[in-house]
Amino acid sequence: MLIDGADGNYRNDNLLLGFSDLRRLRSERPLVFAKGRGIFVVDENGKDYIEAVSSFYCAALGFSDEELADAAMRQLRALPMYPSAIHRTTAPVMELSERLAAIAPVRNARVHFAVTGSEANDHLVKFMWYGNGFAGEPRRRKIISRKASYHGSTIATAALGGGRDLHDSFALPMQDYLVIGHPGWPDAAEPGEDETAFTDRLAAELDRVIQEAGPETVGGLIAEPVSVSSGMYPPPAGYFEKITTVLRRYGIRLFVDEVVTGFGRSGEMWASQAMGLEPDCVTCAKGISGAYMPIAALLLGEEFAGRLDRGSDAKGWFAHGATHAAHTVSAAVALKVLDIFDERDVLGHVRRIIPHWNAALDGLLDHPLVTGNRKFGLMGALKVADPREAPDGNAAASLQVGGIAKAIYEAGLEAGIIVRPLAGCLVMAPPLIITEAEIGELARRLRLALDRTLAALPAA
Amino acid sequence: MLIDGADGNYRNDNLLLGFSDLRRLRSERPLVFAKGRGIFVVDENGKDYIEAVSSFYCAALGFSDEELADAAMRQLRALPMYPSAIHRTTAPVMELSERLAAIAPVRNARVHFAVTGSEANDHLVKFMWYGNGFAGEPRRRKIISRKASYHGSTIATAALGGGRDLHDSFALPMQDYLVIGHPGWPDAAEPGEDETAFTDRLAAELDRVIQEAGPETVGGLIAEPVSVSSGMYPPPAGYFEKITTVLRRYGIRLFVDEVVTGFGRSGEMWASQAMGLEPDCVTCAKGISGAYMPIAALLLGEEFAGRLDRGSDAKGWFAHGATHAAHTVSAAVALKVLDIFDERDVLGHVRRIIPHWNAALDGLLDHPLVTGNRKFGLMGALKVADPREAPDGNAAASLQVGGIAKAIYEAGLEAGIIVRPLAGCLVMAPPLIITEAEIGELARRLRLALDRTLAALPAA
Ligand SMILES: Cc1ncc(COP(=O)(O)O)c(C=O)c1O
Ligand SMILES: Cc1ncc(COP(=O)(O)O)c(C=O)c1O
Repeated sequence: MLIDGADGNYRNDNLLLGFSDLRRLRSERPLVFAKGRGIFVVDENGKDYIEAVSSFYCAALGFSDEELADAAMRQLRALPMYPSAIHRTTAPVMELSERLAAIAPVRNARVHFAVTGSEANDHLVKFMWYGNGFAGEPRRRKIISRKASYHGSTIATAALGGGRDLHDSFALPMQDYLVIGHPGWPDAAEPGEDETAFTDRLAAELDRVIQEAGPETVGGLIAEPVSVSSGMYPPPAGYFEKITTVLRRYGIRLFVDEVVTGFGRSGEMWASQAMGLEPDCVTCAKGISGAYMPIAALLLGEEFAGRLDRGSDAKGWFAHGATHAAHTVSAAVALKVLDIFDERDVLGHVRRIIPHWNAALDGLLDHPLVTGNRKFGLMGALKVADPREAPDGNAAASLQVGGIAKAIYEAGLEAGIIVRPLAGCLVMAPPLIITEAEIGELARRLRLALDRTLAALPAA
Repeated sequence: MLIDGADGNYRNDNLLLGFSDLRRLRSERPLVFAKGRGIFVVDENGKDYIEAVSSFYCAALGFSDEELADAAMRQLRALPMYPSAIHRTTAPVMELSERLAAIAPVRNARVHFAVTGSEANDHLVKFMWYGNGFAGEPRRRKIISRKASYHGSTIATAALGGGRDLHDSFALPMQDYLVIGHPGWPDAAEPGEDETAFTDRLAAELDRVIQEAGPETVGGLIAEPVSVSSGMYPPPAGYFEKITTVLRRYGIRLFVDEVVTGFGRSGEMWASQAMGLEPDCVTCAKGISGAYMPIAALLLGEEFAGRLDRGSDAKGWFAHGATHAAHTVSAAVALKVLDIFDERDVLGHVRRIIPHWNAALDGLLDHPLVTGNRKFGLMGALKVADPREAPDGNAAASLQVGGIAKAIYEAGLEAGIIVRPLAGCLVMAPPLIITEAEIGELARRLRLALDRTLAALPAA
């Protein structure tokens, strides 16, 4: 029984939702959404909410794009599914791979499709092991990630980023994983450290971790350009240049996870471009289809992909594939997303709207619960703290929800806005189509949530 | 460049398809499908093919179901996506979890959604580690699978089933995995061994593997009711009873992968029901949405799910979730699949059609290339061998495509039928909606492919 029982009490014996308190889930009806309208979602009672996080940073074109729905429908009526594998495929998949390769932030990219962001990253590690094995470097298998980042939900990707607590909870096998600190400037800086000293220290840490592991055992480093789950800290000046220099010294690859940042979030198509990164491989998902359909892609550099060819030559085939990779409908929708980016000049819009976004975030700095903000492209994090407590020194924001941020999140639901609470901050990444007026309304609702949270704080 | 170049030659620099020869892919245009019509798919030149494998055993309701397309469209127009997580969800997801729980082959099932079959199995292992840790059994983490089975494409699931060659190619971490033989009766029997002795031996092997690993270190065994990738051998009489007895002796869970067999393939909703299995947990995907949308589900037994509750209680939440798990459109389509099963009596149709299917498979036994067949529900494998060679003694059919089966597959494409070649056999699992007349046409095209292959064999 999921719906309201005969006794009038809600009981859920069946549905086990992720990222939830499982006990609460059994007795308290979740928030149930029924409709979408631009940047708004509407719950079962008709109340609307601004989705200030694009629901997991993904619904980049909002929740009611007719053209995306029509593209899905046309493909559903023509050929609803056909697996792209075994030397068989469909036209939308061929076209999509060409168009992605043409815009990829990786030279001469080969494109392999997956279904989810998790699978894209999982496959990337798997492909690295495969390729390195056939290229005579089987020992180069360790992968470096940055603490508190998020790269996916599979066993292999949950081991990337995260933290000790997450790895221990799920008892993940960790022998192939190395972890370095995240560039949480300035919160993670040591007393007196300036930006240069901070990034020098992080680069030195990377060098030390590689040296300790043995450089010949390290295959790659995976990083989000800006990690939302670690609190959306834009990298400090010089960070990626220094990291890349260390990697190149040892022949270690740079893998960039653009699952969140790809498809316009930064104002460029890729944050790699906005930041001048030169990744060996890139993964993307979410915005690739506006999240209307599950699809993800691996954009593989020539040299990396060439190693897969060697394996295929040796074995006669590449023994990896999946049912819904490059799903026909998903590919058709992703093609339409690319059309929309051109026809509606989405990137131009994002660039024009970013100053308004930044102004709105700055406009909230006067609030007693707000202690600062961080901004990158059309994303932002509002630092929050209970003014009666010592300032929140928790730089490595955990994935876990709690404290004042959680309270503001709940008040936000009241006020009709959805944000993502992390320890010490609220992360936002609204749909790319947001207008200036809507940014104003978003800020108004957020201030309402802040005010109500403040008013409800028990007297100190 | 993907399409035909200026010089008139096809070149593909971009698209890297799975389960393919990557070199061939670069210079030879793949087979490109453009349309679907019932059990047929139609290529870009207008030629039709019977999809005798339902394209990866998944398009169970064929390739042009209007009701499924309409269900997707209605949801796309209402709310195209909203992640089900963080105590938020949508009505189709709630209803789907209730209806799946009601029909699950697991008592009082809790339902967790994933996106792909791979993710469902990957998450199941991850959840086992999590739950066992919080239940005070952290050492119970090893998972047993059966050689040559297939459970997915992620790092953790590719380590399940498969074979040494696959594991080595991808250099997968194998420390948590135990492998036992697959019940390939009678091909895998030792000389003189009858069915009872064969299954006794397999049960004894399982017991020995558990004993050697240390029973307190083994968490579960995962098995497909009938593994298609290992050659579609229906389990011999008594096999699962004996296996289950061994597992129960040591408190080891039975996980049943119904990704292929779920949703009617056996003539029952679940092969677990058809075979009288009592799984602790079941995974399903593919047929759950007729494959029109990516969606998968974990059906978790009470005791297993209760362990997740303990972790959530200890941590305040369950730190696992995914963007497209329980995708709104996918859930709407899966609900429509369940409606269609009822309204069109799909199971009744499958049961009525199975005798015709079996007769068609038997009708091909007279062909010189056919040396036998195997049948289960609306699935079948045709054993094939080049009559000029020694009979194929390769019982543990590899995933790799080759030999005469591959040649028949290619001739089948000519003749307008798609089968799945494995070493030594052709596997088939047509859409559940196949009619008696269509079975006749399928057999006709298959015989044509066999004839042409035979005719083209170079003289011995
Ligand atoms: C940076 C990043 N990588 C990977 C993923 C995993 O994607 P998915 O949820 O589609 O598996 C996410 C999901 O939030 C993400 O934020
Ligand atoms: C039995 C079985 N389990 C799991 C999977 C993996 O499913 P997916 O391809 O959706 O990841 C498959 C796919 O063929 C399968 O046949």
